This record gives sequence, C-alpha cells and structure tokens, in this order.
Amino acid sequence: MPDYKAPLRDIRFVLNEMLDTEQHYVNLGADEASPDMVDAIIEEGAKFSEQVLAPLNRVGDTQGCQWNDGEVTTPDGFKEAYQQFVEGGWPSLAHNTELGGQGLPESLGLVLNEMVGSANWSWSMYPGLSHGAMNTIEAHGTDDQKQTYLTQLISGNWTGTMCLTEPHCGTDLGLLRTKAEPNDDGTYSVSGTKIFISAGEHDMAENIVHIVLARLPDAPEGTKGISLFIVPKFNVNDDGSLGDRNGVACGSLEHKMGIHGNSTCVMNFDSAKGYLIGPPNKGLNCMFTFMNTARLGTAIQGLCHAEVGFQGSLDYARERLQMRSLTGPKAPEKSADPIIVHPDVRRMLLTQKAFAEGGRALIYFAAQQVDIVKHANTDEERQQADALLSFLTPIAKAFLTEVGFESANLGLQCFGGHGFISEWGMEQNVRDSRISMLYEGTTGIQALDLLGRKVLMSQGESLKTFTKIVHKFCQAAEGDEAMAAYVEPLNKLNKEWGELTMKIGMSAMQNREEVGAASVDYLMYSGYIVLAYFWARSAQVAQQKLAEGTSEEAFYQAKLATANFYFARLLPRTQTLATTMTSGADNLMALAAEDFAF
Amino acid sequence: MPDYKAPLRDIRFVLNEMLDTEQHYVNLGADEASPDMVDAIIEEGAKFSEQVLAPLNRVGDTQGCQWNDGEVTTPDGFKEAYQQFVEGGWPSLAHNTELGGQGLPESLGLVLNEMVGSANWSWSMYPGLSHGAMNTIEAHGTDDQKQTYLTQLISGNWTGTMCLTEPHCGTDLGLLRTKAEPNDDGTYSVSGTKIFISAGEHDMAENIVHIVLARLPDAPEGTKGISLFIVPKFNVNDDGSLGDRNGVACGSLEHKMGIHGNSTCVMNFDSAKGYLIGPPNKGLNCMFTFMNTARLGTAIQGLCHAEVGFQGSLDYARERLQMRSLTGPKAPEKSADPIIVHPDVRRMLLTQKAFAEGGRALIYFAAQQVDIVKHANTDEERQQADALLSFLTPIAKAFLTEVGFESANLGLQCFGGHGFISEWGMEQNVRDSRISMLYEGTTGIQALDLLGRKVLMSQGESLKTFTKIVHKFCQAAEGDEAMAAYVEPLNKLNKEWGELTMKIGMSAMQNREEVGAASVDYLMYSGYIVLAYFWARSAQVAQQKLAEGTSEEAFYQAKLATANFYFARLLPRTQTLATTMTSGADNLMALAAEDFAF
Repeated sequence: MPDYKAPLRDIRFVLNEMLDTEQHYVNLGADEASPDMVDAIIEEGAKFSEQVLAPLNRVGDTQGCQWNDGEVTTPDGFKEAYQQFVEGGWPSLAHNTELGGQGLPESLGLVLNEMVGSANWSWSMYPGLSHGAMNTIEAHGTDDQKQTYLTQLISGNWTGTMCLTEPHCGTDLGLLRTKAEPNDDGTYSVSGTKIFISAGEHDMAENIVHIVLARLPDAPEGTKGISLFIVPKFNVNDDGSLGDRNGVACGSLEHKMGIHGNSTCVMNFDSAKGYLIGPPNKGLNCMFTFMNTARLGTAIQGLCHAEVGFQGSLDYARERLQMRSLTGPKAPEKSADPIIVHPDVRRMLLTQKAFAEGGRALIYFAAQQVDIVKHANTDEERQQADALLSFLTPIAKAFLTEVGFESANLGLQCFGGHGFISEWGMEQNVRDSRISMLYEGTTGIQALDLLGRKVLMSQGESLKTFTKIVHKFCQAAEGDEAMAAYVEPLNKLNKEWGELTMKIGMSAMQNREEVGAASVDYLMYSGYIVLAYFWARSAQVAQQKLAEGTSEEAFYQAKLATANFYFARLLPRTQTLATTMTSGADNLMALAAEDFAF
Repeated sequence: MPDYKAPLRDIRFVLNEMLDTEQHYVNLGADEASPDMVDAIIEEGAKFSEQVLAPLNRVGDTQGCQWNDGEVTTPDGFKEAYQQFVEGGWPSLAHNTELGGQGLPESLGLVLNEMVGSANWSWSMYPGLSHGAMNTIEAHGTDDQKQTYLTQLISGNWTGTMCLTEPHCGTDLGLLRTKAEPNDDGTYSVSGTKIFISAGEHDMAENIVHIVLARLPDAPEGTKGISLFIVPKFNVNDDGSLGDRNGVACGSLEHKMGIHGNSTCVMNFDSAKGYLIGPPNKGLNCMFTFMNTARLGTAIQGLCHAEVGFQGSLDYARERLQMRSLTGPKAPEKSADPIIVHPDVRRMLLTQKAFAEGGRALIYFAAQQVDIVKHANTDEERQQADALLSFLTPIAKAFLTEVGFESANLGLQCFGGHGFISEWGMEQNVRDSRISMLYEGTTGIQALDLLGRKVLMSQGESLKTFTKIVHKFCQAAEGDEAMAAYVEPLNKLNKEWGELTMKIGMSAMQNREEVGAASVDYLMYSGYIVLAYFWARSAQVAQQKLAEGTSEEAFYQAKLATANFYFARLLPRTQTLATTMTSGADNLMALAAEDFAF
C-alpha cells in the first residue's frame, strides 16, 4: 500500500495563493479562523490522516465489516481511530458554537475531509454520513431535537445516517414505501426496509441517529408525499441518557466491490419510534436544502482517489526499472531506466496530477461558496454564491468522480501487472473509487440536474453565473502574453459553451429527449472547461510568483508544466464532446427496446 | 449474476454474412469444416458455455483458488467442467490431426474461445494457457518433444503454462535471471523464481508443462541471451507414463483484483529438470512467432466483457422501473418506466453493443488471417495475411481490452448502486476485465509495438496493408447513397490516418520521444477507424439484406441503428485523439522527474 502524504504544499497553494482564504474568512467574519489557526488545524489533520487512518486503509479492505445477529463489527483499529478523532474534537470543527461546535468555516472542514478521505475513504464515511443527519437537524429540527440529537452528533459521541434508498427505488424516491404511522404521543411508528445505508450499524459510537424518508398514511403519491423522521438506534430518555433499543436493526451487510471497511447495511424498520422533522410531506424539499453540500462531499472522493493513485504510481515510476528511454539510457549505472523516463508513463502520471490539483482548486472554490451561502453579509452575495454553487455542484460531483476513477485506473496501469495485485493497494483504490459515480446521484442524474434542472430551466442564467467569471478573468488577462496560451483557448471554449447550450436548448424545445441525449456529454464538456479555468488561474499565480522571484521555482514551474499538459492533452476532449452532445437523440432512440439483442 | 446467452445470431452474422467463412474454409482446403459441421460445433460450444461454465463464474470469484503446501485447489466444479471439456474433445479442435488433433481451423477455435471466455474467463484461462505451450512445442519442438508433450496437451490430459515474468521484470524480459545449467545427460537444471504464472499449479489435469524462459551460463546479456525450456511438473518416463515430481513448485498464490478462479502463481524452480526447445539464446525470437495468436487470445477478453456487460445491463434496463420518460410515461400501467426509455441508459447500452459486435467482427477477421498464415496456398497470400495480422494484433489487443473495460464499467453503471453489489455480477465483470489491459503486453507496450515497431519502422507500409483495404471498400461503395453516411467519414479518416502518421514520423526523426508521446493516442485512434470499417461493412450487409427482403428485418435494422450510433457517438473520439497525439512530446517531458510532487 502506498504511504499517504497529505499534499500540504498544494493545499496551501490553492487556499492561500489562489483563493485568498485569509481575506475570505475575514469577509465571513470568521475571526476564529486566523491564518495560523487554519494552518495548525491542517497540519494536525494531515498528521492524523497519515499516521492513524492511512495504515488502516488496507486492513479495512481485507477484513471488511462483520455482521453477527444484527451487530456489526468494524475492522481492527477503526473504533480506536474514531475515538481519537472524537477526542481531537474533529467532528465539531465546522459546527455551531452554541451546540458545542467550534464554529469554523465549512470550507475548512472540506480540506480536512480531503485528507481524511484520501487516507482511508471507508473510514471517513462514518463521520461523513453524520453530516447529512447534522445538516438536516440543524436546518429543520426543533430546539428540543437539536439539544437531544445534534449536540451528540456534533461531539461525535453519536453518528448519523441518511436512510433514503429502498430495494425498488434509489434515484426515483417518489416510489418509496416506508410508512410512518402516527402514535398518540406525537411520535410515529416507522416500518419498512432501506438498503445501501452506509454506516447504518457499527460499533464505533454508542448511538446512531437515522434520518429516514417515509410516508405518512394520508400522504400524496410520489415525491410530494415524503416526510423526514429521526429514528435513533437507542431511544433517548428525557435526561439525554440512552434508553431501550428502538425497532430498527441491520438485517445484513451488502457484499460489494469496494469500500469494504464501511458497513453498507440493509436496515429493517419495524414499528421503530420516529420523530417528524420539518413539515409533513416536505421531506424532499428539506433535503434539497443541503444537497449541494452532500454532493460536494462525494465530489471530494474523486479528488482523493486521483491523489492516492498519483502518489502511489509516482513512487513506483521513480523506482521501477524497466526498459531504456527511447533517447538512450538515462540511468546508465542501473540495469534499466526508471519507468518515469517513458513518455506514456508521464502521460498517465500527469493526467492524475492535473485532475487531482485541478479538482482541489474546484472543490475548495466551491467550498468557499458554501461558506458564503451560510454567512454572507448581504442577500445578493448569498444568492450569487448559491447560484454558483448550484451550477458547480453536479459538475464537481460527476466530473470529478469520473476523472477520479480514470485517474485511479491510470495509477494502477503504471504498475503493469503488479497493479492487479492487492498488496500494492492500487486495485483497492480503483475499487473504492468506483462507488463514487453511483451514490449521491449517478453521473447520469447529475447530468440531468445540470443541463435540465439548472441550465435549461433557467434559460441559461445558471450557466452565465460561471461563464461571466471566466469571461472577466480572460478580459483581465488580455494583453498578458505569457497567459495567452491559456486565455485564448479558454475564452474560445467559454463562448462555444454558451452556443452549444443554446443549440441544445432549441432542440429540446422540439423534443425533450434531446436533454437526456446530450446531458452526460454536456456535463463532462463543462467539467473540462471549469477545470481549464482553474488551471489558467493556477498558471497565472505561478507566473506572478516566478516574475516576483521565489525560492520555490521548481514548484511553480511544475504548476506551469501541468497547466500546459492540461491544455494540450486533456482539454481537447471537449472537441469530441461538442460533436457527440449535439449529434441528436435519434441515434439513441431509434432502436426499439425489444430489438437491442437477438 | 446475469445468465450468459451465446450471441449466436451475431456470431453467424459475422461468420457467414460478413466474412463468408464457408468460402474462406474452402480456400484453406479445410474440408472437415463444412458449414453444417461448423454450425454444430458452435451450437455445442454455446451449450457447454451457457450450461456448464457460466454457472461456475461467480463460484470462481467467491471461492477463488486455495493454496496448501504447494498444492492448489481450484473452485468447486472447475475440475469437473474441465473433465467434460476434455471428454468433449474441445482442446484438440484446432490442432494437428497427426498428433491427435481434429485439424479444424484456428479461427473456429477463437469463436469457441469467445463463448467459453464470456461464460467464465477465469476458467477459460486453464485451457487457454495451454495454447502458448502447444504453439511453442509445435513450432520449435523436436519430434520426441511433440510425441511426449504435445500429444498430451492436445488431448487436454495435461495443461501448459508460459513462465516469462520475474519479480523485477515483466515488460523488460532482457533483465531476466532464471538460470539453466546444462547437465551431462543433455537436460538442464533450471533455477529461479517466476511470478504471475497463470494456471501455474492446479488440480484439473495430471501434469503441467511449463515453458520457461531462462539463461544459459554463457548467454549474452539482455534479450539476446534468453532460451526456452520445457519443464514438466512431473517428469515423464520413456514410456510416457508419469515419473517423479520435478523441482518446480508453486510458492504462493497472488491476491488480486479479479479472475479469482484462476490460479496466479509464484513458481519456484529449484534445479528443475528442463529440456531446451528451439535454438539456444533465440528464445524470444521463437516466442514472437506466435505472439500474434496469443495476443489475439487476450483481445477476445475485451469482447467477452463487453458482451457480458451488455447482456447483464440490457436485461436490467428492460426490467428496472425508475422515473418516467422525459416525453411522458411509456409504461403508464407500471409505477415507473423501465430505465431503457432514458436516452442516457441507451447511450450506455449502445456503447457496449457497438464495441462487442464491432469487436467480434474485428477478431473474427483477424482470426481468418491466422488461418491464412498457417495454411495459405501461396507465399504472397501468407505474407499479406501476416502483415495484416501484425498490424491488427496490437490494435485488437489494446483497443478492444480498453473499450471492453469501458463497456464493463458502463454495464455496471446501468445498475446504479446495485452495480456495486457483488450478487449482480457486474462488478466481477469489471474486476475480471481489468487485467486484460495489463498482461500479454500492456496498452502502452502494444502502442509502441504498433507505432514504433510496425508502422514507423516499415515507413508506413504496415499501415497501408489496412488503409488500402479501407480505401478499396470506400471506392467500391462510391455512389451508393445509402452507404454515404458511413463511407464519407470513413474515407476522410482513412486519409487523415496516413497524414497523421507521416506527421508523427517526421517529428520522431527529430526526437524519438515523440513516438512514445503519441503512441497510445495513436493506437486508440487507429482502433476507432478499424472498428468504423467493420461497422460500415456490417451496415452494408444489413442494407443488402433489407433490400433483398428478409424475415429478419428487426435484426438488420438494429445493425443499422448501431452503426449509426457508432458513427455519431463513438467515432468522433478520433477528433480529440488527432489533436492530442500531435501535441508533441514537450508537454510530457518538460517536467523533471523530481518535480512531479512537492
């Protein structure tokens, strides 16, 4: 297994040199988040991730979770690591001080999530899932519910889950059947089966707070009849102590391709006592209020697996000796050259590097919008950040997980046959990353969200929230010759983006299928341009630093080299996508369903 | 696990309607291979694959192979299935009648390999690996060696392996260290460690014949000092009976991402008795004589996983109800529409279908060249087939395994979260397929073989063996309006292919790194054009049949729809590849090895 080293230099580059996080925190009024404080937190988080979590990553994969009569045992060391995590105060980092949180900005929490998730994605999901529960209760819970559940979640004493999926419905939650019958005491009896419940049952915390989607007896059909309920694993007494076991149990664990260290549970609710949260029948609306944050949390997974793949394959490529360089021996004293001399190995390494570093910039930028949505000084600021975040979220989620999986695969590929062997850890990285394109809305669903719900439904306004930013950037850099290599293609694509959107919008007015026929290609196309913008900004910062003079010349030159690579080798993927996304729905819809095979 | 159904209708379409296999066999003088006989063999092979092998596919994955003190136990049922395979006479199908074979054409064997491999790739590797050993002995063995070993391999009583890789060398065989010391009796003592030996040890046959690459004491360094040895697991007495155990043992099994049902062995040779085969120090040359066949055998794996992914996801897409069509309910009587109504699900299904069926045409066509190389009436025919096969082999191997992996992933993706769950079998299909881009020469190595060794080293002549065929096809179809939609883009790309090759060749004269910098993109670009040619031919056949009148209209219309999809949605990938392959080596080579990370 490759050692994980938190990429602190690049994290600081993005936070401090690209995104001016110091000023951003000042604007938010987040006085606790002084530069020194932020830096210290990141260093501590890095240490914890490298030293405590990374060594458990392969243990989690090989042992997996064990189910025994409803009880779930997590892999060796997971529980202890969680205890350390709680003692370190990590769960409370970005939460309300009135409820025991530290009140630091959400964006700082996402930096931590990157390091924790890269070190051990399966482990990171236990505290990660709590966030959904916390956000739900924070936004829609009563004061009592906050005191009873949220404080315990913030402290990390308890963890949380989101119970959405049922065997017959994942994407289409309108079909869900779990029932909530009102009891005389104002509580509800929740019954039904939920599947794919990550961290649904485990031995790491003393209680688990399930947020459950269910239907009231008189609920309208479809998505407009879904309500949200708090269903604790153990009922909570009035004094906050744990009472009897509630009617919810883990029926079994799923056997799955990866993230073996995380318990993916079938959860059976059998007249479990539940508490309505938010207004009846408005459950889905309530959940949408923090969907962006949740999806950004999954977008990070793309970045994590790209980073891990990159680190592992870079180490290997520097050490593995195989063949001579095409231009003659580069390490004549050795029996062969290290494979990093070979252009195609470099292509694979640079692809991973460009996606990891570009993805980091995108996610940290989006995370700043989360901060602004929460703490903006004006409504206008808030609305603008919200619009930008709404637009970027499906791109970050789907694009980064797709290229994260590609990167994980390239990391494996650099190892040749050894990449297929478990001990190296590269194949685990591929398997663990594969889920990211499925859960929290598949790539196809994100693409419909982007093109259908956001861009087209807003008549293109949603797109403009971002293209305006790109346009401004290009305008400001006009005349800067060193930047021309980035600004010219970026500017051109930024215009083409609008034109293609218009074109698809026009076709979609004739035939709604055109939206679905274009959507995934449109999303990927958008992703490449978004990343090009961040790579252009990275290059600009690097050029400025080099012009000013710096002791870190190699670092900034590497930024430029990677930006050049991105523009030369990855951004041209937009060419094909522009063609295919406008090729029309006919080539997909012509074939009758019964004629796909004979 | 999805049921495997051998795609007999499409197999017959390619064999009989596209490639006129009947005439091909007549030309070869393969009188045994009458159309009825061929069809009966294929039907029997389909039955065996569907009924005996497919049910063992998941068993193989979950049980894996067990190592115990050097002995390896294969998963339940594997041994019995192999026994049936031997009793059915399958191993001897395409082998020399004088040594007990049935003398049927190699291309027919490859059709069988497709079905067997789709049903259970791990199992198929046991008889599959024997082929390497058989080909080696057939081409380079003495009569004695043939009588002793080859007859037993042909009957299937024994299996074979190819022992190439060592811990420090896979691609770069020049580094290998295994030694062969001559004994007084003319045999050799072979000592060394080999890894990644597929089917290296198992309980399915009574003896295993290892073909081992090793160095004689006085051998020159590098690839020119490698010799080939036969090293049997059990020594063979003069009367052909089994003698004592030889000094070769399986030290351990690798833990790996997939193909768990196949034993991937570390093999320790400790003064094992070996027999030189072929001339000393010419081992690699000897192996190259059948490299094309071996690589074609792996190319099939791409086709297999695309087919399996397609079949599984098609069934699911027709049954799974989720969301309504964008143009209104298509199954109003159900709670939701089957997901095959959604354009993006169709995009994923059609991608798999286009790669599977196009890949089948490519492989069967290449297999005909194998037949011709073996049995041509004239040297000219043989040389032409050999040139064509040499050109197509790295494309078939690397391109089809890359798009096979993509297809397997799309098959999984169609299942949403369920795709990640083992019981559905789609994630096994992904894991099993991942090895195909690594062994038998990685994608990167195939790409260097294609662009460097073949196309550029022949001054483009190798490319012309194929572009001439495409050119002829396009010329002949000129004026056929119904074909214009295929012929025009194909013709244009066929020309561009030559131009880009010239361009890269010119840059490579300045800088050899340009070859490695362009190679993988060049190979993939080539693959898309090769498949476009076969899709154009498929469309032509379909149009002819429809014009003539047919009772299978839906089948031929589906061919046209899939061809249209291929040209509209997959072939445009050449646009990006044309740009990136000519973007130059600088964007890869500029960064110093030590500056990839900080």
